Amino acid sequence: MSTPQEYIEANKEKFIEELFELLRIPSVSTDSSKKQEIQKAANFLISQFENLELDTVKKFDTPGHPIVYAEHCPHEDRPTVLIYGHYDVQPSDPDELWDSPAFEPTVKNGLIYARGASDDKGQSFTHVKAIESFIKTGNELPVNIKFILEGEEEIGSPNLVPFLEEHEDLLACDMVLISDTAMFAEDQPSITYGLRGLAYMEVEVVGPNRDLHSGVYGGAVENPLNVLCEIIAKLKDENGVIQIPGFYDNVIPLTEADRTAFAQLPFDEEEYKNTLDIKEVHGEKGYSTLERASARPTLDVNGIWGGYQKEGAKTVLPSKGNAKISMRLVPDQDPKQIAGLFKKHVESLAPNTVKVTVTEHHGGHPSVTDLNFYGLKAGAKAFEEIYDKEVLFSREGGSIPIVADFKRVLGVESILMGFGLTSNAIHSPNENFAIKDFYRGIKTSARFLELLPEYSS
Amino acid sequence: MSTPQEYIEANKEKFIEELFELLRIPSVSTDSSKKQEIQKAANFLISQFENLELDTVKKFDTPGHPIVYAEHCPHEDRPTVLIYGHYDVQPSDPDELWDSPAFEPTVKNGLIYARGASDDKGQSFTHVKAIESFIKTGNELPVNIKFILEGEEEIGSPNLVPFLEEHEDLLACDMVLISDTAMFAEDQPSITYGLRGLAYMEVEVVGPNRDLHSGVYGGAVENPLNVLCEIIAKLKDENGVIQIPGFYDNVIPLTEADRTAFAQLPFDEEEYKNTLDIKEVHGEKGYSTLERASARPTLDVNGIWGGYQKEGAKTVLPSKGNAKISMRLVPDQDPKQIAGLFKKHVESLAPNTVKVTVTEHHGGHPSVTDLNFYGLKAGAKAFEEIYDKEVLFSREGGSIPIVADFKRVLGVESILMGFGLTSNAIHSPNENFAIKDFYRGIKTSARFLELLPEYSS
Repeated sequence: MSTPQEYIEANKEKFIEELFELLRIPSVSTDSSKKQEIQKAANFLISQFENLELDTVKKFDTPGHPIVYAEHCPHEDRPTVLIYGHYDVQPSDPDELWDSPAFEPTVKNGLIYARGASDDKGQSFTHVKAIESFIKTGNELPVNIKFILEGEEEIGSPNLVPFLEEHEDLLACDMVLISDTAMFAEDQPSITYGLRGLAYMEVEVVGPNRDLHSGVYGGAVENPLNVLCEIIAKLKDENGVIQIPGFYDNVIPLTEADRTAFAQLPFDEEEYKNTLDIKEVHGEKGYSTLERASARPTLDVNGIWGGYQKEGAKTVLPSKGNAKISMRLVPDQDPKQIAGLFKKHVESLAPNTVKVTVTEHHGGHPSVTDLNFYGLKAGAKAFEEIYDKEVLFSREGGSIPIVADFKRVLGVESILMGFGLTSNAIHSPNENFAIKDFYRGIKTSARFLELLPEYSS
Repeated sequence: MSTPQEYIEANKEKFIEELFELLRIPSVSTDSSKKQEIQKAANFLISQFENLELDTVKKFDTPGHPIVYAEHCPHEDRPTVLIYGHYDVQPSDPDELWDSPAFEPTVKNGLIYARGASDDKGQSFTHVKAIESFIKTGNELPVNIKFILEGEEEIGSPNLVPFLEEHEDLLACDMVLISDTAMFAEDQPSITYGLRGLAYMEVEVVGPNRDLHSGVYGGAVENPLNVLCEIIAKLKDENGVIQIPGFYDNVIPLTEADRTAFAQLPFDEEEYKNTLDIKEVHGEKGYSTLERASARPTLDVNGIWGGYQKEGAKTVLPSKGNAKISMRLVPDQDPKQIAGLFKKHVESLAPNTVKVTVTEHHGGHPSVTDLNFYGLKAGAKAFEEIYDKEVLFSREGGSIPIVADFKRVLGVESILMGFGLTSNAIHSPNENFAIKDFYRGIKTSARFLELLPEYSS
């Protein structure tokens, strides 16, 4: 009987082929025309679990995209790990900036290029293969496992929390394991213990009831694009401080200990700037780049559009302008409350020459995990054995709102065991995932499950 | 032998059919894929002139789109009128806002709906039909006429001024006649004696070298869309005063007489607001709506774009943002100088966290015509006979830069005899032109040519 690690070594090519099959499915959840592709991705995962002959394999329908559930619980007296991931992906546009097609995985210099390669198909698939390495070698699973893989993460998981609440007993567990974050640096195993929340808004400014000739009306009729820019400009001051009244009220200030920990993380600001081709970093005055990128709240325009956007010059005074604006939140900011403050403030900035509408997209709570949790310690040990390097514990700027929801509904901590890198270009053209990280991820996951019983006792 | 006016009455349906043929050609000059359509429109006009057996009919090639030239000069001792117009049109987008296809002329409630119906195919075609009304009835043309119809007005006439300069002798004339403006109100004949100039700029703000995840980088890397909005917001103050240093230096202030004339023009601000569905007008403090819309300079964002603009929420920190920004100018502002001041100021506003590029599209000089010119008086008389109403002399907010060029190169005044209405929605979806104005335009043009000899002596 071979060991799980031997099985992983022996099946590397098979694992890659299977991952590619999943990556070829354009399961873009923000695109309502891609419903069939979402189903296809869910069915692919179902067939993976069925092939492992787990105790339970089930596709739960929701008002949106389905949730794939699987469990295998051979032990009464050992921990239960709920493995969470998502099989939906971000849109691939702008497609013209991809060097290879977004949904045809292509390997170059040891990297798999494809939408979802890292976020989150590639990362979450590591755990499926880790489980396989026990089952297919006839080794007993060291702990109980449950899988919950959703298809709506990129649209804010609207149906996941209701699902958690409805299936609290089914999902009962001792911890959640998630691989949807990045390592701090290449070959530097990292566990993320803090995540930012999110409030995502859309602003529409409407002026005249039709596009006007800017010569005939310009100067006498308010231009909604100018107003939109003026409103956005007023949302932050010259020091990068967000000007929405009450915005910072519930922000827990960074402690001296927090700031010392940040200062000790390895970080080369020159390299950071060079990689992005920027002359200077920029952010809230009085904070370091790492603090700004992970432990302080933000406000970013994610998209803006209005008027004439093509070749040449069209002298139009447009009827309306739109912007998507999102804010990253930190403990204890509440996304609903922040969305309300944003709406109220933007409306108060709108002159009565235009109509301003503010709508809310999905949001999510920020979270911080207890550093003393035994699951974190087992995760760190597994990482260190496979990577042969000490783990860094860090906070990350992105949002995985479900972490706060797992805590609230199931009462458990999450272990964020990221195998990706910030250079993976997730949400961007040419998203990628290193083949070596995919393999090490599978190995780390398998080792973590083996180590967990001793850490729990 | 019938009179020109009788011929016009008898051929109304034929004229409409011919105009529709011209309107069906999508001769969009800003769209480089529409070159063949531009040629088609030019050829249509050539065949119109050939059918009238004018002395000279010629299509001049230019580095861009062709110039259609025709002349018929039977008199040694009478004035020569150079009739200028353009057969190119603005893009039709957003097409989904048109109630009928932009390039399939449709009549509804006495209005012809089509791109170019008013600007400028419909208006300039009136003069072709006026000439026809003399030639086809065997009546001698009362004056000498020359036509110059270009295909690049909507892209700033880049090849027209070189053409004027090169063909100064060919184009020698006593005045220019142009129908490319609007009447002050329905059934209110109007002659425009002032036009604004134009400087049209494009601004690109580039931040990081690729689209980034707004969670991972947000707060630490400057967002080019936020910067773009901040720059635009700084271009005007809260009183609508443009903040570019030196911008107002060459603006000739409105005199008391100017302001009294503006105040006496019939204008219903409530109706103006209701038609546009706006609660309040907005513009430079201390000026009336009519002054703001025609005799004061402006700054408008004509288009803006960047980042994610589709359905749903994408958490991207975009690599770049763009805006098209134009300024309407008044005497004696110089478009090249203003473009330079704009570029310098915008560059000075750019933080060193981004790269800002400012480029210049076409511009044009503002102009004011001498109110004592005999051509204006003959035009006013013709208008009054056909419309049975006294003419208003007004200044208009739009730009016809060529008017300043005619003055400079050929040394002559222009008569701006507009048959359109501001409600024609030129440059907008559902552009239209009243059938009755098309007919009255032809009649007014013919009558003007008949009256001119007596006014010139």
